[in-house]
Amino acid sequence: MTYTLKKIQDFSTNLNSNKFFEFFVVAIIIFSALVVGVKTYNISEELLKIVVILDWTITIIFLIEITIRFIAEPNKTKFFKKGWNVFDTLIVVVSLVPIDNSDMALLGRLIRIFRVLRMVSIIPELRVLVNSLLKAMPQLGYVMLLMFIIFYIYAAIGSTFFNLINPTLWGDITISMLTLFRVMTFEDWTDVMYETMSVYKFSWIYFLSFIFFTAFAFLNMVIGIVVNVLEDERDKEKKLESKNSNAVDLETIHQQLIEVQKQLKTLKK
Amino acid sequence: MTYTLKKIQDFSTNLNSNKFFEFFVVAIIIFSALVVGVKTYNISEELLKIVVILDWTITIIFLIEITIRFIAEPNKTKFFKKGWNVFDTLIVVVSLVPIDNSDMALLGRLIRIFRVLRMVSIIPELRVLVNSLLKAMPQLGYVMLLMFIIFYIYAAIGSTFFNLINPTLWGDITISMLTLFRVMTFEDWTDVMYETMSVYKFSWIYFLSFIFFTAFAFLNMVIGIVVNVLEDERDKEKKLESKNSNAVDLETIHQQLIEVQKQLKTLKK
Amino acid sequence: MTYTLKKIQDFSTNLNSNKFFEFFVVAIIIFSALVVGVKTYNISEELLKIVVILDWTITIIFLIEITIRFIAEPNKTKFFKKGWNVFDTLIVVVSLVPIDNSDMALLGRLIRIFRVLRMVSIIPELRVLVNSLLKAMPQLGYVMLLMFIIFYIYAAIGSTFFNLINPTLWGDITISMLTLFRVMTFEDWTDVMYETMSVYKFSWIYFLSFIFFTAFAFLNMVIGIVVNVLEDERDKEKKLESKNSNAVDLETIHQQLIEVQKQLKTLKK
Amino acid sequence: MTYTLKKIQDFSTNLNSNKFFEFFVVAIIIFSALVVGVKTYNISEELLKIVVILDWTITIIFLIEITIRFIAEPNKTKFFKKGWNVFDTLIVVVSLVPIDNSDMALLGRLIRIFRVLRMVSIIPELRVLVNSLLKAMPQLGYVMLLMFIIFYIYAAIGSTFFNLINPTLWGDITISMLTLFRVMTFEDWTDVMYETMSVYKFSWIYFLSFIFFTAFAFLNMVIGIVVNVLEDERDKEKKLESKNSNAVDLETIHQQLIEVQKQLKTLKK
Repeated sequence: MTYTLKKIQDFSTNLNSNKFFEFFVVAIIIFSALVVGVKTYNISEELLKIVVILDWTITIIFLIEITIRFIAEPNKTKFFKKGWNVFDTLIVVVSLVPIDNSDMALLGRLIRIFRVLRMVSIIPELRVLVNSLLKAMPQLGYVMLLMFIIFYIYAAIGSTFFNLINPTLWGDITISMLTLFRVMTFEDWTDVMYETMSVYKFSWIYFLSFIFFTAFAFLNMVIGIVVNVLEDERDKEKKLESKNSNAVDLETIHQQLIEVQKQLKTLKK
Repeated sequence: MTYTLKKIQDFSTNLNSNKFFEFFVVAIIIFSALVVGVKTYNISEELLKIVVILDWTITIIFLIEITIRFIAEPNKTKFFKKGWNVFDTLIVVVSLVPIDNSDMALLGRLIRIFRVLRMVSIIPELRVLVNSLLKAMPQLGYVMLLMFIIFYIYAAIGSTFFNLINPTLWGDITISMLTLFRVMTFEDWTDVMYETMSVYKFSWIYFLSFIFFTAFAFLNMVIGIVVNVLEDERDKEKKLESKNSNAVDLETIHQQLIEVQKQLKTLKK
Repeated sequence: MTYTLKKIQDFSTNLNSNKFFEFFVVAIIIFSALVVGVKTYNISEELLKIVVILDWTITIIFLIEITIRFIAEPNKTKFFKKGWNVFDTLIVVVSLVPIDNSDMALLGRLIRIFRVLRMVSIIPELRVLVNSLLKAMPQLGYVMLLMFIIFYIYAAIGSTFFNLINPTLWGDITISMLTLFRVMTFEDWTDVMYETMSVYKFSWIYFLSFIFFTAFAFLNMVIGIVVNVLEDERDKEKKLESKNSNAVDLETIHQQLIEVQKQLKTLKK
Repeated sequence: MTYTLKKIQDFSTNLNSNKFFEFFVVAIIIFSALVVGVKTYNISEELLKIVVILDWTITIIFLIEITIRFIAEPNKTKFFKKGWNVFDTLIVVVSLVPIDNSDMALLGRLIRIFRVLRMVSIIPELRVLVNSLLKAMPQLGYVMLLMFIIFYIYAAIGSTFFNLINPTLWGDITISMLTLFRVMTFEDWTDVMYETMSVYKFSWIYFLSFIFFTAFAFLNMVIGIVVNVLEDERDKEKKLESKNSNAVDLETIHQQLIEVQKQLKTLKK
């Protein structure tokens, strides 16, 4: 029996590193995305039945694929340490749960939509892209915090002063923050401003300073990322250079000259 | 007869590299652009007749110009390997097809409009610009794919939840994607959001996260291009430097010193 | 008595450099921010009373904290030379002033809102961020001045020509500048333009040139900052490099060779 | 008499390089800007009379200032070779022309507004800024031309297909270009699109491709400027470096070693 297991594992490992298998999985993911898309159209009962069957077929194929990938992995504990594997397994497992309740049916549909994200986990270039985005996240953390503080203070001031003018926009601090986000995207922000200016004549200072601060903070964020990325590039380049230049450096020549001078001294004697 | 052919080819080659000929072609293209522009105004019957005659004159001049350029090219197979030549020939050939049907007439007008693009194929600086844009395209491919996945998932969620609220905006996945593109450009996006918030109170999370993700992906794309362009520049610069510094390097000096030490050893003996 | 004072100072210094004390202060600031947020909701009389008590508790804790920080500082005059200390003290002192008048009550609420800014003064990373923003300010000064001149000239032209068309938008130079800021943010700017175009057909030149100039000036500003930041980074890097390369330079080798040649000359003799 | 002239020239040169004189001129320009601003408000007859007198006073002060600057210049032909001097002189000379006709009065007001631009010609930092903007202009020329070609082609297509849907937006090629500029700024662009989509279902391709192309071209332009500015900075830096490193280079050491080897050869003999 151990022999059979060994054979299955070898087969799985071969399959997993097979290019055609990868293409097949990508094709299935694209197909599952299309199925998700089709369901948003008004389709006939018969087609819907076919879609449901296709949905289950895709789930089973995904289940088999994950199993193969799991068997192919020599170190089983390592498998679940990779975030993408956990993500893939979760999506498949949740898809397997049979759902009867209509409320849960909506959740089931959501899970099926998120299967499209498996595209990212299967194509290496996209995985690299998303990983680099996630890596930049913590660096942006403090700029986000600063921006949140700016938003919070302006929202508190806004809901204190403009509350009675328009409660829909300035009712409490949460609504005010949403209104301020709208102002930041310049979406009909003058309507919001003119309304408050009819009561407080100088409220344009509030809006203009807010736009100025958030634009500035955002700019700072962008520049922060650019500088960071450029530095990373430069570091990589330097490492490459230092690898290439394993030849001669000034130190070597310095030592050679010391040697020459010693030789000359012995000659004199 | 071969002699006559040779003479024609020489004449064509001279003409093709002639500055005045280039200026003449540019002038004709500008003139054809003006003719295209004039046709969009309400013009009298007589003027329209003149415009039709001018159109044909331009087509014939273009035909002659392409023929000259073709004859001037010593290697005939090379001529059609250049994308711009193929583009020019296609535009001229399609312009020659006589059109009677009114449906096709619209297509004929379109072709005449695209003749303005010949400006790009004739002015070298513009050709360089467009080529550099096309070169950047594949690098952006994966970011575009990632963005498409984000759009697809959000559109699927959107048309699942908001379908009954406003079918004009969230009817099916295609319409939802168009609506999301509108949200990304901040065009009356709050109207879209407030409408969904009247049913799902927390739908602002959907919109804000979408804006965050697409803005972030876009940012990544921009930075990708900038870094790429800067790297290209640096590479060019380095090649230039290494060309200039064909003089002395540390390796040469190292070898010289080894030579000096050898000489000193022979002296000792 | 001097002994007791010494003991208090030591205790304060220890407390000030204590990590838990810092966390406690941050927690109190977050709590004060929440209290500010709660007040924007419609809350019952009882809750309001509790909030008022909490407000005073926070003020007293802040007062104690500032006092500890002041005692902990060995050089008392240095304490008020740091902008953040002055800011903290001001916020606390003004919070202590008892307010009865309703007009002043609004000011009191504002001061309580600005206590959230103490987050910036207490978290070092945010302090660095804000300091770097303030440092970039004077460099941007001249671009801001240029932009103000552009705004002023366009506003003067606008209120001269469009005054009679729509006094709400072009009444005087101040209102015109606000309208132009709106145009710069692309907020319903075509409505503004179409209105003026019904009288002055070529007023689109006014708007398009304005958008062009301000966009260009803004671009210049952004590039200015980016280049500046990159230069700063490069300078830092260079300083680091020059520190590391305290080893051998070409000058040393040059001197060594001069020495060698001298030795050779003495050998000849 | 020549003596008196010499004395006046010396006095002018001293005055021109005087810091207080510069501050005085800047103050007068700011004052003239304020006068321009005041005129946009509804002011009483008396105040208007004062403003007119002030206007003339400013004109005369400017005339005297230009005269002083002209006398101070040793090389008279050089004076009018500087663009800023020509600009200043023009503004002053045109201000002197007496205007009675009401149509011309508007022009007169315009000239008085442009006097604010003298701020740029008098403050060196602003002059540097504007000069750098003007220097970047020709480099941007070809990108602008490319963008114009994109606009022209899309406008020709737009006015061909959408002319009958909404003549106000797509009447002829000029109006279409203005509409497309509006689409580029995302100002109510979906309204424009939805209108055309009711007739041509796939017209969203037209709009999305247009946004894509113009955004891409614009991006290219921005990157072009950034790279250019960074290159300029690098060139400056390199020149500085090469100035500093007038000390020893590898070539010198190479020559020294050749010398050493020669000396060794003579020793052997």
